[in-house]
Amino acid sequence: MSLRFTIQELSEYVEEIFPQIKDDFEILEISENSSRVKLKISFKHLRPGNTVSGPSIFYLVDCAAFMAVCSRLGKEALAVTTNCSIDFMRKPARDIDLVAHCELLKVGKSLVVADVKVYSENNEKPVASATITYSIPPKSDN
Amino acid sequence: MSLRFTIQELSEYVEEIFPQIKDDFEILEISENSSRVKLKISFKHLRPGNTVSGPSIFYLVDCAAFMAVCSRLGKEALAVTTNCSIDFMRKPARDIDLVAHCELLKVGKSLVVADVKVYSENNEKPVASATITYSIPPKSDN
Amino acid sequence: MSLRFTIQELSEYVEEIFPQIKDDFEILEISENSSRVKLKISFKHLRPGNTVSGPSIFYLVDCAAFMAVCSRLGKEALAVTTNCSIDFMRKPARDIDLVAHCELLKVGKSLVVADVKVYSENNEKPVASATITYSIPPKSDN
Amino acid sequence: MSLRFTIQELSEYVEEIFPQIKDDFEILEISENSSRVKLKISFKHLRPGNTVSGPSIFYLVDCAAFMAVCSRLGKEALAVTTNCSIDFMRKPARDIDLVAHCELLKVGKSLVVADVKVYSENNEKPVASATITYSIPPKSDN
Repeated sequence: MSLRFTIQELSEYVEEIFPQIKDDFEILEISENSSRVKLKISFKHLRPGNTVSGPSIFYLVDCAAFMAVCSRLGKEALAVTTNCSIDFMRKPARDIDLVAHCELLKVGKSLVVADVKVYSENNEKPVASATITYSIPPKSDN
Repeated sequence: MSLRFTIQELSEYVEEIFPQIKDDFEILEISENSSRVKLKISFKHLRPGNTVSGPSIFYLVDCAAFMAVCSRLGKEALAVTTNCSIDFMRKPARDIDLVAHCELLKVGKSLVVADVKVYSENNEKPVASATITYSIPPKSDN
Repeated sequence: MSLRFTIQELSEYVEEIFPQIKDDFEILEISENSSRVKLKISFKHLRPGNTVSGPSIFYLVDCAAFMAVCSRLGKEALAVTTNCSIDFMRKPARDIDLVAHCELLKVGKSLVVADVKVYSENNEKPVASATITYSIPPKSDN
Repeated sequence: MSLRFTIQELSEYVEEIFPQIKDDFEILEISENSSRVKLKISFKHLRPGNTVSGPSIFYLVDCAAFMAVCSRLGKEALAVTTNCSIDFMRKPARDIDLVAHCELLKVGKSLVVADVKVYSENNEKPVASATITYSIPPKSDN
C-alpha cells in the first residue's frame, strides 16, 4: 500500500485547509498505519501549575490521529471525530515539546479507531493515553 | 452550602491565574453542583467544514467543569483532570456560540466526576456529551 | 412516533434471541427515547467487598441501551456496540437491585449514542454513569 | 522488583476471594507491569450474531487488569475500578477463546491506569481496546 502523501505534501495540505493550526504542529513521521506529530509548546498551551493544559494535549491527540487518517485515506476522507477517551497520567514540563505516537487499530468502511500515546520529547513515560474514533462518510458517487 | 465565589469573583480569579483563556469564556451560571459556561466562537475555534473544532469543544467542557469544581471546592482545590470521554454528536454552526451545562455527579474526597452537555446557543439538541474526572490532591497540613 | 414494541413484546423478543440474559433483567419502562431496566442482583453479580461487580454494571448499561435502541428502531436494527465509557462512582449495596435509566442522545443514520445512569433502587445518587455508542449497519435491499 | 505472586498463587488467591469467576479465566502470564489472561468462552458469554457479548469482553478486560494490579501491589491493594473506556472493533468468533494483554501505563499513589487489548487466540488484529483506571485506597495504618 502506498501512502497518499509525503510529509511535505501533507503539511502543505493541512496548512491550506486548516490554517489555524499550522504553527503549532510538526509532522515527524507518517506510515500507512501510524503517525508521529509534535506540538510546539508556547504560552497559549500552558495552564496554571507550570504545565501544558489538557485541551492542548487533546488538540495534539486529535491532530496526530487526523494526520494518520489522512495519510491512509487521502484528501477525500473528510473524517469527523465521533468519540475520544483520554487519560491524563503525568504532568508534562512546560518547556518541553510534546510528541504524539498514533497507531490505527482499525480502518473500517465507516469507522476508524486510533490509539494515541503522548510523551514529553525524549521521555519514555506517557503523559497521556487516548483512543479516538473517526466516522468516514460514505462516498457520494456510488 | 454556600458558594465559594460569585460569578464576578470566579471570573476575576480565573482571569488572574489563567490569563490565556480569559477572552474565550463567559460564566453564565454557577451553583454548588453545576455550571453553565459559554464559549465565544472566533476564527481560532473553527475547523474545515464550517464548524467548531473538536479540541475547542473539549476546551469548553474542561473549562465548564473546572468552574463547577472551583465553585464547590474553592481556590485551594488545585484539581487536575485525570480522564475525559467525549462523544461528538452533531456539527455545530460556525457562527453560534456554544454553551456547556455541567453537573457534578460525584464529589468525593479524592475524585470529582462531572457530566457535561454542550449545545449551540438556543438549540436543545446536544452537540457533544462528556464525562470528565478531576483528581483532588490531599490537603497539606498548612 | 409509535413504539416498535410493548414491554411485553420486547421482553419476549429478547428472551427468544438472547436466552442467556432472560433471568437477569426486568424492563420497567420504554419510550421512543428512553428505557428503564432493572438488574436482579444474585450471587453471580457480586465481587469481593460485598458489592456488585463492574462487569455486572456494564452488563446492565449495555442491556438498557440495547432495549432503548430496539424500542426505537425495531427488530431489524442489529445494532452493535462500538464504544462505551463508564465511570463507577459509588459502591452499590449487594442486596439491592440496580436500575438503569437510559436516554438516547442521538439517533443518526449510522450511529446511536445513549447516556445511561445506574442507581441502586430507590436511591437518587448514581452508582455509575456511562455513554454507549451503537453502530447501525446499512439496510440491505431485501 | 519482585512479583507479589506466582501465577499459581494468584490463581488460588482469586479463586478464594472471587469464586464466581474461577471457571472463566486462565492466567497465562504476569509481570510487574503486565498480564495476559484468557477467557474460556462458553454459552453464557455469547450474544446474538454468533459472537461474544460486549459485557463478556468487558469482564475479561477488568479481570486482566485486576490481575496485573494484584501482581504489582499485592493482596492489600483492594483496588476499585473507577473508569473504563472500551472500543469494540471486530466481532470475535464464538468458538475461539479470547486473550487480553494488559499493560500498566501508570502506577501512582492513588490511581493505576492500564491499557488492555483483547484478541481472539492466535489472531493479531484486536477485537477490542480499553483503558481502565483503578483507585487505590490510602493505607489505613498511616
